[in-house]
Amino acid sequence: MEGIKVVTIGGGSSYTPELVEGFINRYEELPIRELWLVDIPEGKEKLETVGALARRMVEKAGVSIEIHLSYNREEALEQADFVTTQIRVGLLEARALDECIPLNYNVIGQETNGPGGLFKGLRTIPVILDICRDMERLCPNAWLINFSNPAGMVTEAVLRYSPITKTVGLCNVPIGMKMGVAEMIGVDAERIFIDFAGLNHMVYGTDVYLDGVRITDQVIDKLSNGIGLTMKNIVDLGWEPEFIRALGILPCPYHRYYYQTSKMLEAELAEMNDTGTRAEAVKQLERELLELYKDPDLATKPPQLEERGGAYYSDAACSLISSIYNDKGDIQPVNTRNNGTIKGLPDDSAVEVNCVITKNGPKPIQVGELPVAVRGLVQQIKSFERVAGEAAVTGNYNKALLAMTINPLVPSDSIAKQLIDDMLEAHQDYLPQFDHPASVRKG
Amino acid sequence: MEGIKVVTIGGGSSYTPELVEGFINRYEELPIRELWLVDIPEGKEKLETVGALARRMVEKAGVSIEIHLSYNREEALEQADFVTTQIRVGLLEARALDECIPLNYNVIGQETNGPGGLFKGLRTIPVILDICRDMERLCPNAWLINFSNPAGMVTEAVLRYSPITKTVGLCNVPIGMKMGVAEMIGVDAERIFIDFAGLNHMVYGTDVYLDGVRITDQVIDKLSNGIGLTMKNIVDLGWEPEFIRALGILPCPYHRYYYQTSKMLEAELAEMNDTGTRAEAVKQLERELLELYKDPDLATKPPQLEERGGAYYSDAACSLISSIYNDKGDIQPVNTRNNGTIKGLPDDSAVEVNCVITKNGPKPIQVGELPVAVRGLVQQIKSFERVAGEAAVTGNYNKALLAMTINPLVPSDSIAKQLIDDMLEAHQDYLPQFDHPASVRKG
Amino acid sequence: MEGIKVVTIGGGSSYTPELVEGFINRYEELPIRELWLVDIPEGKEKLETVGALARRMVEKAGVSIEIHLSYNREEALEQADFVTTQIRVGLLEARALDECIPLNYNVIGQETNGPGGLFKGLRTIPVILDICRDMERLCPNAWLINFSNPAGMVTEAVLRYSPITKTVGLCNVPIGMKMGVAEMIGVDAERIFIDFAGLNHMVYGTDVYLDGVRITDQVIDKLSNGIGLTMKNIVDLGWEPEFIRALGILPCPYHRYYYQTSKMLEAELAEMNDTGTRAEAVKQLERELLELYKDPDLATKPPQLEERGGAYYSDAACSLISSIYNDKGDIQPVNTRNNGTIKGLPDDSAVEVNCVITKNGPKPIQVGELPVAVRGLVQQIKSFERVAGEAAVTGNYNKALLAMTINPLVPSDSIAKQLIDDMLEAHQDYLPQFDHPASVRKG
Amino acid sequence: MEGIKVVTIGGGSSYTPELVEGFINRYEELPIRELWLVDIPEGKEKLETVGALARRMVEKAGVSIEIHLSYNREEALEQADFVTTQIRVGLLEARALDECIPLNYNVIGQETNGPGGLFKGLRTIPVILDICRDMERLCPNAWLINFSNPAGMVTEAVLRYSPITKTVGLCNVPIGMKMGVAEMIGVDAERIFIDFAGLNHMVYGTDVYLDGVRITDQVIDKLSNGIGLTMKNIVDLGWEPEFIRALGILPCPYHRYYYQTSKMLEAELAEMNDTGTRAEAVKQLERELLELYKDPDLATKPPQLEERGGAYYSDAACSLISSIYNDKGDIQPVNTRNNGTIKGLPDDSAVEVNCVITKNGPKPIQVGELPVAVRGLVQQIKSFERVAGEAAVTGNYNKALLAMTINPLVPSDSIAKQLIDDMLEAHQDYLPQFDHPASVRKG
Repeated sequence: MEGIKVVTIGGGSSYTPELVEGFINRYEELPIRELWLVDIPEGKEKLETVGALARRMVEKAGVSIEIHLSYNREEALEQADFVTTQIRVGLLEARALDECIPLNYNVIGQETNGPGGLFKGLRTIPVILDICRDMERLCPNAWLINFSNPAGMVTEAVLRYSPITKTVGLCNVPIGMKMGVAEMIGVDAERIFIDFAGLNHMVYGTDVYLDGVRITDQVIDKLSNGIGLTMKNIVDLGWEPEFIRALGILPCPYHRYYYQTSKMLEAELAEMNDTGTRAEAVKQLERELLELYKDPDLATKPPQLEERGGAYYSDAACSLISSIYNDKGDIQPVNTRNNGTIKGLPDDSAVEVNCVITKNGPKPIQVGELPVAVRGLVQQIKSFERVAGEAAVTGNYNKALLAMTINPLVPSDSIAKQLIDDMLEAHQDYLPQFDHPASVRKG
Repeated sequence: MEGIKVVTIGGGSSYTPELVEGFINRYEELPIRELWLVDIPEGKEKLETVGALARRMVEKAGVSIEIHLSYNREEALEQADFVTTQIRVGLLEARALDECIPLNYNVIGQETNGPGGLFKGLRTIPVILDICRDMERLCPNAWLINFSNPAGMVTEAVLRYSPITKTVGLCNVPIGMKMGVAEMIGVDAERIFIDFAGLNHMVYGTDVYLDGVRITDQVIDKLSNGIGLTMKNIVDLGWEPEFIRALGILPCPYHRYYYQTSKMLEAELAEMNDTGTRAEAVKQLERELLELYKDPDLATKPPQLEERGGAYYSDAACSLISSIYNDKGDIQPVNTRNNGTIKGLPDDSAVEVNCVITKNGPKPIQVGELPVAVRGLVQQIKSFERVAGEAAVTGNYNKALLAMTINPLVPSDSIAKQLIDDMLEAHQDYLPQFDHPASVRKG
Repeated sequence: MEGIKVVTIGGGSSYTPELVEGFINRYEELPIRELWLVDIPEGKEKLETVGALARRMVEKAGVSIEIHLSYNREEALEQADFVTTQIRVGLLEARALDECIPLNYNVIGQETNGPGGLFKGLRTIPVILDICRDMERLCPNAWLINFSNPAGMVTEAVLRYSPITKTVGLCNVPIGMKMGVAEMIGVDAERIFIDFAGLNHMVYGTDVYLDGVRITDQVIDKLSNGIGLTMKNIVDLGWEPEFIRALGILPCPYHRYYYQTSKMLEAELAEMNDTGTRAEAVKQLERELLELYKDPDLATKPPQLEERGGAYYSDAACSLISSIYNDKGDIQPVNTRNNGTIKGLPDDSAVEVNCVITKNGPKPIQVGELPVAVRGLVQQIKSFERVAGEAAVTGNYNKALLAMTINPLVPSDSIAKQLIDDMLEAHQDYLPQFDHPASVRKG
Repeated sequence: MEGIKVVTIGGGSSYTPELVEGFINRYEELPIRELWLVDIPEGKEKLETVGALARRMVEKAGVSIEIHLSYNREEALEQADFVTTQIRVGLLEARALDECIPLNYNVIGQETNGPGGLFKGLRTIPVILDICRDMERLCPNAWLINFSNPAGMVTEAVLRYSPITKTVGLCNVPIGMKMGVAEMIGVDAERIFIDFAGLNHMVYGTDVYLDGVRITDQVIDKLSNGIGLTMKNIVDLGWEPEFIRALGILPCPYHRYYYQTSKMLEAELAEMNDTGTRAEAVKQLERELLELYKDPDLATKPPQLEERGGAYYSDAACSLISSIYNDKGDIQPVNTRNNGTIKGLPDDSAVEVNCVITKNGPKPIQVGELPVAVRGLVQQIKSFERVAGEAAVTGNYNKALLAMTINPLVPSDSIAKQLIDDMLEAHQDYLPQFDHPASVRKG
C-alpha cells in the first residue's frame, strides 16, 4: 500500500498535537497514510479528546492522514513503518512519587538519571520490551522511535534485551541547547551547530559553531558571565564562572543536578513546599491543555503546549522519521548504539551523539575520548543505567539496590535501601517482575 | 661499592622505626650498607630522636647498616639505589586543615581522594617532582618508592610529569584487607590471596582465595552479615547486606566515604565535636611515640606504632625493595602505570593492581574490564586525580576548582569554590605555584 | 581580501586542467580569486604549457580566477586558504624505477602500499613536511589537501610529524568504486552510496546502498559472477566466487595485489616484457597530453585526460574544498586522523573513511571493528606505513629495511635488503636523509 | 579419593614416555594416583607398547602411579582432575599431505599457522570440542591441557565454542627459545627469563633477562651476528643483521616462514626432493622409537626422544599441571584468553603470553601494545585463526577458502581454492563437517 503507517504508543499524551502538527508540516516529504494513536483503556477520555483534535487538525490542513484510535496494540502494530513510544507507566501519579519519596530523605528525585529515573526505568523497560516482542511478530521492519523517558536507559535495554535493532532514542535536550545558544547570541537557530557527546540527559556540547565557525569559547564566556542556557523544567542557578571555564565545554541543563547537587536539592525542597512537585505542576498543566483541546473550534496546536519541558520533542521525532524515510543524510543528535563512538563506554551501550541519519538509521560521528574531567561522571551514569537495566529485566532486588547506591545523587547504601523499599511498595502494581517488597526485605 | 644505599626522604617520620625493623629483619637477603634519613631543618628534633633510635636498633640487631642523618637532599641522593618518600608537606597542621575546612561546609575532608586529598596533592606533587629532578642528576638508576599520600595521584604525577620511570607507589590498604580477611575467617594471612584492582584508596578485592581456592562468596557473605573489614583510622558502619551481595566484590575501607557518604559525614562531624579531627589524634599519638623513642634503652620498634592507620606500610616497602633487589617474581599490589591493565583507564595513569615484582619493577597482572557497577566510581576518581595533577603542576586556579567540583564528595560548584578559596589561603605557604588567592579571586 | 587563494604545489602536472575545470564549474559556490600553480624550475616547460591552458580555460569560462605561475613556493603560500599538493619527487623516471627494480627480483613494485610505495614515501614525505613548515609560517590557517601518493602514508606523516592539523588526504579509489558499482548495476552514480573503511588504496566498501536501500549482497553476487570493478591502471583478473562471497564486502582494485599476488606478478612481468612498465605508458600519455595542451585553440580539458588512472582525483579535490569552504556537511571518503574510528588502529594514524565535511574539516563516521577476515591485512599495511614514515623522517637504514621486510608483497628479509640497496642507490639524489648506501651497507 | 587422576587423550603417542618421566620426577609435589592413556582402537599396538614402557618406568621409579590403558574415552574421563590432549587426527599420513599438497603449488605447508595448519585445525577442532562435551558431563571441574597442534587455534576454539573455561594451550616454542638463549650466551637456562608475547608459533621474546638484568640488546646482537636460535625441526637460514636489529625483539623459529618465505620454500622443496617431507622423517623416527620402547629392559625415557621438534613439550605440561595443582604462582608462557592482555586482539581470542600459574589457572601478565612493526603479522595470523575456527565448526566451504586466502603464505585466491579442493578431497574421512568437495565445487 502507498504511504506510511505510523503507530504512536501512548497516543493520548497531551504532546500528541505537536506530533500531528509536525507530520502535517512535513506532509509533502513524508506522506503519512495512517497515524494510529494507541493507549490503554484507562486513558480513554484523554485519547478521545486528543484524537478528536488530531482529526480536526488534519482536516483543517487538508492532508489525507487517517487518524485511528485504538486500545489494541497488536491490531495497530500490524505492518507499521514507524512506531513511536511516549508512554508513562503509572501516569503522572507515579512520577510524583518518583520525585517526592526521595525528597523525603533529602535526596533529589530526578526522573531520568536519578533515583526517580531508576523507578521510571524499572516500570517502563518491561513494557517497551513487550512492545518489541509484538513488533518482531507484527512489523519486523519497522523503526522504533522511543521518546519515553528515561530514553537512554530504555534505548539501551532495547539494544541489549530485544531483537529489535532498528531503534532510536530521542531527546529534546540537544535541540533545546541549540535553541538556547541561538537565543544567547541572538542568531537564528539554524546557523548554530553543536557537537554533542554523552548520554541521554547527560550530554555535553563539546564544540559550538556559528555558520561553521567555532565559537565555543565565546559561548563558554557568556555562560560564565551568568547568561543562562536552561530548560523550562529546570531551575537556572548559574555556574561558578571559573568552573565553567575550566570545564571548557557546554553542560546540559540536567548537569546542574550533578555539579550543583546541594543547591538543586534546596531549590526542589523549597519548590515542593511552595507549589508541590514538578509532577503536580505538570498535572495541572495537562488538565488545562486537555480542557483547551476539547474546544471543537480548535484545529491547531495551541501555543501553551510549548511552555512544557518537553518542547521540541515531537518536532525532533517528525524530523528524525522524515530523515530516515527520505535517506536525508542530515545530522541529528540521537541515542544509539555506541560501537566505539565514545571510547571507554561499552560497545552495546546507548550513547547520545550526533549521527548522520539515513534510511538505515543513525550512523554516529566519531567522538573518541571525552575530556578527562567529564569522563568519570558519564561513566558513572552509564554504570547506573546498565545495572538499572539488569534490575528491570530480572526483577532482582539486590541489583536494584546496587543501581540506587551507585547513583551519584544517593548519599548512602542505607538511604538507597529506604528509597528502594518505599518505592517498590508505592509502585508495586507497575513492577510485577519484583517480588512483593515485604517478603523481599526479610529475605 | 658493595651493599645497597637507601635514602628515605622524610626520614624523621615516627614510622621510620618500622622501616628500620623491616630492613633489619631482611638483612640477609637485602644487605643494606647505608640508610640515609633526610629531613628538613624544621624537623631536626624529630630526625635526631628517630635517627638515634634507628642506630640503637641496628646496633642491637648486630647488622652493619650505617645510619646517616642529613638535611641536604642532594648529598644524600648521590648514588642511591632506592629512594623512599614519606613526606608530609605542611606537617600534621596542614592535614588538620585539610580535614577541618571541608567539615565547616558539611563536606568530608578525606585526605587522599577527597577535598583534603586534592590539597595534599597540590602541596606534595611539586616537592616529589623536585626530588625526581634531583634523582635524574644524582642517581638516575635508583628506584623511587613513594608512600607519601595521596600515593595514587603522586605516582601518576611522577609517571606523567617526570623522566623517572622506575617508580612505584605503595599503600597499606591491600595488605590491611588481606589481614582483615584472614582474621575474619580465622586463618594465617599467608594463606589468603586477593586479586586487587582499582586505584589507590579505591581498590577492590575482585576475588579472594584461601590456599588457592576461591572463597569470594563466603567472604562477601560474612561482610553482608555485618562482620567488618576495616582499618584503624576508618570507622566501620557496616554495609547494607543486599548491597554488598549485589556488589559481589570486596570494597576497601575507604569505599565507605563514597557508598556511605552521609553516614560517614555524620560520624566525622560527631568525632570532631567529641575529640577533634583525626589529624589531632594522630598528632597526639606522634607526640607520645616520639617521647617513647627518646628512651635510650629502647632499641626495638615499640608496639604502639602498630596502632596507627599506617600499619604495614613500612613492611610493605621493605618487602617491595627486597623483591626488586632479588628479582623475586612474587606478587604484590602496588601503584604502577596502567598500560591497558584496567580497560577504560588511560595507559599513562597510575592504577593499584597486583604485580609480579622483578628487578625491572612491577609487571601488572591483567585485569580487563572492572565490574560494570564499580567502573563509574573508579573512573570518576581517576578523572579527579588527573585534573588534580594538572592543577598541581600548572598552579591553575580553574583546574583546581574543576578537580574539586568533580570530586564525588563535593556537593556543588559553589561549595567547591569556597573550599578552594579557604584552602588556598590556609596553605598558601606550601602552594607557591598558585597566585595568591586574594588576587585570583578577583580575576 | 575577498575570494579564495588556492596554491597547487606541483602545478605543472598534466592533471591540472581537471582541477581548473573543477574550479570553473564550481565558481558560483567557490569564488576562487587566485590560483597559484607552483613547480620546480626543472618543470618550467610543463608549467608554462599547463599554465597557458589554464588561463585560456578561465578566460573562455568568463570567471575571474587569476592564474599565477611560480617557482617560489614561499611567495605563493603567503596568505593561502587552501594548499593542494600533487608532487612526484623524481618524476616518472623515479616511478619507473620503483616498479622495475622489484620486478627484477620477481616482486611486485606497487607504487603506493608496496615496495615502490615505500620508496615513493621516502622521497615524498620530507618534501611535504618542508611544505608544512612553510605553511606554518606563511599561511597557518590554510588547509593542506594532499593528493600526492602514497596519500595515506603522507597524510599520516603530516599528522604525526608536523604541526599542521588542518590536513586531508585524498584518493580517487572510492569515487572510482562508486562509479564502478553504478555502471555495474546500470544506475546513476549519485544514487549509489558506499560505506568506506580502511586505508588508502586498501579501502573496503563495507556496505553498498541504492537510494538508501542496502544492496551489498547483490553487488557481491555480481562480483562473484565475474563482473568487474576495477580501475584504468589495474588489470582485472576476476575473483574466486566463493572467496568474494565469504569476504562479504567490496574490495578495492588495489586489493588484487594482496589477494592475487602471484597472478598480478605474472601479469606485471608479462606487461613489462610486452610494453614496458606502467610508468612508461604514463610517460607516453603525458607527452601526448602536453602536446595537446600546447594547442592555442584548446580552452577546455581534453577528454583524453580521463583515460588515466587518476581520473576523478581533481574533481574530488574541488568537491572537498567546496564542502570545507561552504560548511556543507556532506559525506566524502577521505584520509584523516583515526581517533578510534576504526578500532585497533592507532589514534594518530591516517585512515580512509567516510567523513562529514565541515568548515572544520572532516568528521569521521564511526566504523568500529573491521570484519575479522580483513583486520589482519589492514593492520599489516598500517604497520608498514608507520615504520615507513619513521624511516622517512629519520633516514634510518634499518627502519627502511624493517618496513620493506614486513610488507606483505616482499618474500624475505634478504630480498628486502636487495631492494633497499638497489633503490637507495637508484634514488640517492632524492633521499638526502639517508647516508650514501655504499657506506651504509658496510655498517 | 586421594591423589590426582590424569587422562591423556592420544596416550599412544611416542612422546608419552617424556610425560611419564615428568610425572615421576615430580611425584613428591604432584601425587598422581592414576594416569589413563586413551587412544583409538587403530592405535592399539602403539598404545600397548607405550603403556608397557610407562608401567616399567613407574615400577622402576618406585612410585605408585597406576597406568590405565583405554579405548573408551568416557570411562577414562570420569572424575578426572586433568585431561591432556596430544592427538593427531589422521596420524602422520595426514600431516604428510598437509605438507606435500601445498608444496605441489610452490606453497609452504607449515603445519600450524600455514595452509597445513588450516587443515590440521579443521580436522582437530571438532574432535577437541567433542572431548569438551564429554568433560562437561563427566569431569566438569577438570583442567584441559591441550598440546595438540595447532595449539593456538584449538585453544581459541575451546574458549569460543565450548563451555570449558578451565583450559590452557601449551607449546614448546617458548621453552625452546629460553634454552636457545641460555646456550647462546653460555649460562644455565634457569638464569634466563624472557617476556613472551604473541600467538602460538608466532610468539616474540619482547625482552630477555639474565638474573633479572635486561640483556635484550646483547641477544639481538648475537642473533644479528648469525648466531642461531632455532628448533630441531626448522632450518636456520640466519637473519639479515639490519633487519633483526630494527626489529629489536626476538622472533621465534617459526617466524622464518613469514620473514623468509621464499628462502624457506626453497629449503623445503630441496628437502622434499632429497629426503621427503618432515612428516616422513618423523614417521621414520617414530618407528625407531617404538622399536626401542619394545625393549623389555628399557625402563626410562630413551635419550633419542629429545631429538624431536617436540622436545620439552611434556615437561612443560607436567610443570604446568604441578603449578596449577600446587597454586605455585610461578610464571609460564601459555595460550590463554586474551582479555585485553595484548591490545588490539579480541578479548575472547587465545594469545601466548607469560602467565602467573595458580590453582585457578593462568593469569596473564599485561603486555599492552605490541611493537608496531609486528602488530600487522600477528593480527593477520589471528584473523586467519579466527576464520579457520569458524570454518572448522560450521563446515562452511567459503569460510575455509577465506581463511586459506588470507593466510600470509598463500599467494592468491586461486591457489587457495586449489589447496582447499585438493585437501578437502585428501582428508575427507577426517572432515565430516564438510560436504563432499566434489559436490561443493559445483555449488
